[in-house]
Amino acid sequence: MINRQFTLAARPLGMPKESDFALVESPLSEPGNGEVLAKAVYISVDPYMRARMSGGSAYPDPLDIGDTMVALGIGRVIESQNPAFAAGELVLGEWGWREYSVSDGSRWLKLPPSAAPVSTRLGVLGMPGITAYFGLLDVCRPKAGDTVVVSAAAGAVGSLAGQIAKIKGCRTAGITGTDAKVEYLVNELGFDGAFNYKASADYTNSLTRLCPDGIDCYFDNVGGFVTDAVLPLMKPFGRVALCGLISEYNLDQPEPGPGPLRPILLNQLRMEGFLFTRFQNRWGEALTQIAQWLSEGRLTYREAIVDGFTNLPRALIGLLSGENIGKMLVRL
Amino acid sequence: MINRQFTLAARPLGMPKESDFALVESPLSEPGNGEVLAKAVYISVDPYMRARMSGGSAYPDPLDIGDTMVALGIGRVIESQNPAFAAGELVLGEWGWREYSVSDGSRWLKLPPSAAPVSTRLGVLGMPGITAYFGLLDVCRPKAGDTVVVSAAAGAVGSLAGQIAKIKGCRTAGITGTDAKVEYLVNELGFDGAFNYKASADYTNSLTRLCPDGIDCYFDNVGGFVTDAVLPLMKPFGRVALCGLISEYNLDQPEPGPGPLRPILLNQLRMEGFLFTRFQNRWGEALTQIAQWLSEGRLTYREAIVDGFTNLPRALIGLLSGENIGKMLVRL
Repeated sequence: MINRQFTLAARPLGMPKESDFALVESPLSEPGNGEVLAKAVYISVDPYMRARMSGGSAYPDPLDIGDTMVALGIGRVIESQNPAFAAGELVLGEWGWREYSVSDGSRWLKLPPSAAPVSTRLGVLGMPGITAYFGLLDVCRPKAGDTVVVSAAAGAVGSLAGQIAKIKGCRTAGITGTDAKVEYLVNELGFDGAFNYKASADYTNSLTRLCPDGIDCYFDNVGGFVTDAVLPLMKPFGRVALCGLISEYNLDQPEPGPGPLRPILLNQLRMEGFLFTRFQNRWGEALTQIAQWLSEGRLTYREAIVDGFTNLPRALIGLLSGENIGKMLVRL
Repeated sequence: MINRQFTLAARPLGMPKESDFALVESPLSEPGNGEVLAKAVYISVDPYMRARMSGGSAYPDPLDIGDTMVALGIGRVIESQNPAFAAGELVLGEWGWREYSVSDGSRWLKLPPSAAPVSTRLGVLGMPGITAYFGLLDVCRPKAGDTVVVSAAAGAVGSLAGQIAKIKGCRTAGITGTDAKVEYLVNELGFDGAFNYKASADYTNSLTRLCPDGIDCYFDNVGGFVTDAVLPLMKPFGRVALCGLISEYNLDQPEPGPGPLRPILLNQLRMEGFLFTRFQNRWGEALTQIAQWLSEGRLTYREAIVDGFTNLPRALIGLLSGENIGKMLVRL
């Protein structure tokens, strides 16, 4: 049996090219005693993957050239020599960019049948949902009436963070990269306003129009010039949840802006970086609450699904180019 | 009667020059009914003064050209037409760079006779002491055994922040700008280590030698390249109290370093800017505790006293050049 996987072929300079990934075929052994063979159903595509393609010390755990690209994924069991798994069952795990996987299953989570599409376990009911929930509620800690700004607001995490802020009674403004996304945020997700930074000559102006009374909370997925514009507009004692730096992942050095220190000092801001792993002992709380909001129709989501294993590189490049609305996934 | 004051004559480019200040003489009217005439005894010299000399929006409340330079100061009452004040009494207030002041006294704090030298009300028992106390204990929140790094560690605030960290059972490392200050920190103040950044070819190296197990708390007075070196060495969930940005006050733009966002995200740091005014309803707590530590000999301080009103510009330039150990003051 032949397995296919994508490995890191070259460290990208700036935006990755398809040639930075190598499609490698290799024989796959049958599952041995206690092992399980599963085939990918969905592979998650997330911004952090770009960071791990860089070398040096800028980001932790860099991939080596030749390593299989990392990803969370969902697989379906094809053959099991392990009594804990049966053919046809779905599993979630650190899958990687590969078609098939043979494992003892110890690091896979079995996904019970559910009313929600299984793909949501990689999105609204998975890592992005948990990230939005705790980043907003535990790091930003908004009060009803607060003004909350979200960057990369139409992405998997940002679109949820903004909606949760609305549920909590906040005014919500989104920063995003296309006019279609602005419409999506305002008309479908109920954001109070949004602007397309790629069409804005002056971020400060655009933000001031949306948030004339200042900003209490900032859920930041991007860093860079966008963040340089947001921070000086924050009210005293404002809170910043630093969730991602997608504007920087393609750069050797951050953009040469004024940086965040002055506004953090002068506006007495609290900025906190966080990873979703930090809240591991409370993931259940987030998933239960999000599922309830979904069932009540108070939360909605989109998925940007790309079909075909070999389209993984193109999907990641598309994500980094801002082509997606909502969670980017590859479906096999 | 003639009063003298220093006004802002020109916005400095980089380090201020004496010609950026104008010594202005003007007639001073006698105190009217309800008014008090006092003469400066000590005028405080602090880094924020440089920030307020800049125009534009980089710092709040910029002085206009021709405005009297701002300062906290201590005066002695010479003549009083106000029953609340008597000749000879000492008062503390927003004094400005002036020799004499006539006021209704409503914004002056009367200083009762005290065993401590009155100058300490501008230093260890004043704004710098309060700043160090709350910045360390309420913003950094160190636990016993934590490693605490302090920048501008031999200054009025830093020298106290480091000593309070030692009192709380922390390992303390200082960053400072002369070998004499390194000796002062280690031999007189009990810091566990310190390094002279002006003599260091590699801040990261110097810090790693002092803090081989990483940094839990960073009390930052400087920003810039020093802070760029500290943050990546912080442990997960480390805390940063952002108290000042003395490295930036002479610059139009911050130094073009990597900036703090990556280490804040990756190390899940909490960075918080603060001003001493934020803790106004708890100032008494800080002053009582600091006075007790002083009386127990657990806290020590130095003052860098410059004599003569006309030396105020030189004193501020000296402060910004790092000439002082401890609190910089001008004595009249």
